[in-house]
Amino acid sequence: MGQLRDLKDLMIHELKDIYSAENQLIDALPKLAEKANNEELRNALNHHLEETKRQKERLDEIAGELNTTLSGSNCEGIRGIVTESEKLLKEDAQPNVRDAGIIAEAQKVEHYEISAYGTLHYYAEELGLEKVANLLSETLEEEKNADSKLNDVAKSGINQKAETH
Amino acid sequence: MGQLRDLKDLMIHELKDIYSAENQLIDALPKLAEKANNEELRNALNHHLEETKRQKERLDEIAGELNTTLSGSNCEGIRGIVTESEKLLKEDAQPNVRDAGIIAEAQKVEHYEISAYGTLHYYAEELGLEKVANLLSETLEEEKNADSKLNDVAKSGINQKAETH
Repeated sequence: MGQLRDLKDLMIHELKDIYSAENQLIDALPKLAEKANNEELRNALNHHLEETKRQKERLDEIAGELNTTLSGSNCEGIRGIVTESEKLLKEDAQPNVRDAGIIAEAQKVEHYEISAYGTLHYYAEELGLEKVANLLSETLEEEKNADSKLNDVAKSGINQKAETH
Repeated sequence: MGQLRDLKDLMIHELKDIYSAENQLIDALPKLAEKANNEELRNALNHHLEETKRQKERLDEIAGELNTTLSGSNCEGIRGIVTESEKLLKEDAQPNVRDAGIIAEAQKVEHYEISAYGTLHYYAEELGLEKVANLLSETLEEEKNADSKLNDVAKSGINQKAETH
């Protein structure tokens, strides 16, 4: 609980939320990658894990710019999506079907982040925080690319294989 | 827990998830609308509540097409985002800042749904389920429009007002 007096307070509130999200994903992505059957999907998830670590560092840099700290929050949205993914991994699934499910869950993660970073980027621009806006823009582009890469992996054949087990 | 043998099983699994999401949103959207200060935002949320009710009916129609039922699941992703929103509504916030926060949370909801319906639409096309694909496509367009409408409301002045309380 905190006080939200102005857009900067709300921005810090949302930055804490996404900082918690990135930390949760640094734990969750390796578990998804480990259960992926398709090599291209596994590589995409591992590549995004490395990006996620850099995105967390970028948030630390933003915290420095804003003279604040971002730890101590608990992103419930990402916690929910991660819980969903964990349930999916426990289902008795044919490998290509599990891969298609992993893609679906990973895209929900990306969309959450695209929304969160899109909002944050907009706040930073409104507040004239140019350096922060640029850092957020880098991450936003990475999230969009990760989502698009997952589309490519799905369309490269996982879903077709899932169809005809 | 179920068996995921093929893409149709996964599709039904994901349909159950989004059916639970729509039901949760039918409860949650009026609470967000009630706390919104800006009239345009309140109208946008109430309009989307009516759309959400129709989207649920569309899912019932899809269930009929697939000869299945969609109740009994619990969408953890939306539950997480709704929990986040409820926490935000409890914060001591200046009204325009709360409105900006409500927009941020509502856009996370829309992005979750855009991802889920995008995936489902793709599955339906892969499986040659033309009528189901058309119904999903209608909802997907509504979710994208709702997200875009929230952008317009944010840019029409709420965020600027939040800046200069």
